Amino acid sequence: MFPQHLTDLAEMIRQAYATRGLWIATAESCTGGLIAGCLTAVAGSSAIVDRGFVTYTNEAKAQMLGVPADLIDQHGAVSHPVAEAMALGAIAHSRADVALAVTGIAGPGGGSAEKPVGLVYIACARRGGAVLVERHVLAGDRTDIRLATVERALTLALAAGNGNAAA
Amino acid sequence: MFPQHLTDLAEMIRQAYATRGLWIATAESCTGGLIAGCLTAVAGSSAIVDRGFVTYTNEAKAQMLGVPADLIDQHGAVSHPVAEAMALGAIAHSRADVALAVTGIAGPGGGSAEKPVGLVYIACARRGGAVLVERHVLAGDRTDIRLATVERALTLALAAGNGNAAA
Repeated sequence: MFPQHLTDLAEMIRQAYATRGLWIATAESCTGGLIAGCLTAVAGSSAIVDRGFVTYTNEAKAQMLGVPADLIDQHGAVSHPVAEAMALGAIAHSRADVALAVTGIAGPGGGSAEKPVGLVYIACARRGGAVLVERHVLAGDRTDIRLATVERALTLALAAGNGNAAA
Repeated sequence: MFPQHLTDLAEMIRQAYATRGLWIATAESCTGGLIAGCLTAVAGSSAIVDRGFVTYTNEAKAQMLGVPADLIDQHGAVSHPVAEAMALGAIAHSRADVALAVTGIAGPGGGSAEKPVGLVYIACARRGGAVLVERHVLAGDRTDIRLATVERALTLALAAGNGNAAA
């Protein structure tokens, strides 16, 4: 069901992480579980996928990941600081070595001049290491935006698993 | 990306839940986030999807959902009692009115004579109400089994939202 290039990425991640004994966790808002769903589309993924947090509501972001409510109040749920806090929260609330987090506006509603449909922040955290946060404005419909977000997130995870700072 | 019949189900759930002010949560093992991913494939799902737990490891089932470790030891992660405990854990650890939980063997590995590839337990819990648990042995490859599990789980969620005990 996932496009081939995404399951290819998932298989490359599985190999890279399994070889190094690394575990991954996900914290997803706009993708709603698709990153975890794609990572687990490949056989053997149970050796590298620890858990995933689908934090669709702000309450879920606070309760599951410890994202401070005032951070969301101040910057909005779709923001660089919240993406970073989600990734760090996923590290803190799992045993994963690498955590991916995404928050964005998949549309068709919910956009504004300042934060248009397609705006997505993607964060990748390594336990004890840096957090990389990317900002994208992605084109297309809801499915296009969600799948492009999955692709970019998996690319970051692969780079992190291979020991690179960025993809 | 999801087959049309699954997004149709997700849209029917969205309408049924939004009309009644109901929220849903998911707890997924073998589907790895796909149930939440499908529920959030339709616009407006943010009004009914509270959160999702992707509990791929036994540690995640215990830590995120409070599934007792000895329950898993005694019955195995893929079992009726664990599916039920996952659904009740999702209710307890969310504000959802209805929780879906699935645990199964998507294959191609991991099967046995007693618990073959395709064995899936699907639970649907209502806050303060009963927990319905179904056992299925699904045919096909890993993707087929996961998508059939999503379909059956969504069917249960729709029935629960419409006030029926079973689909």
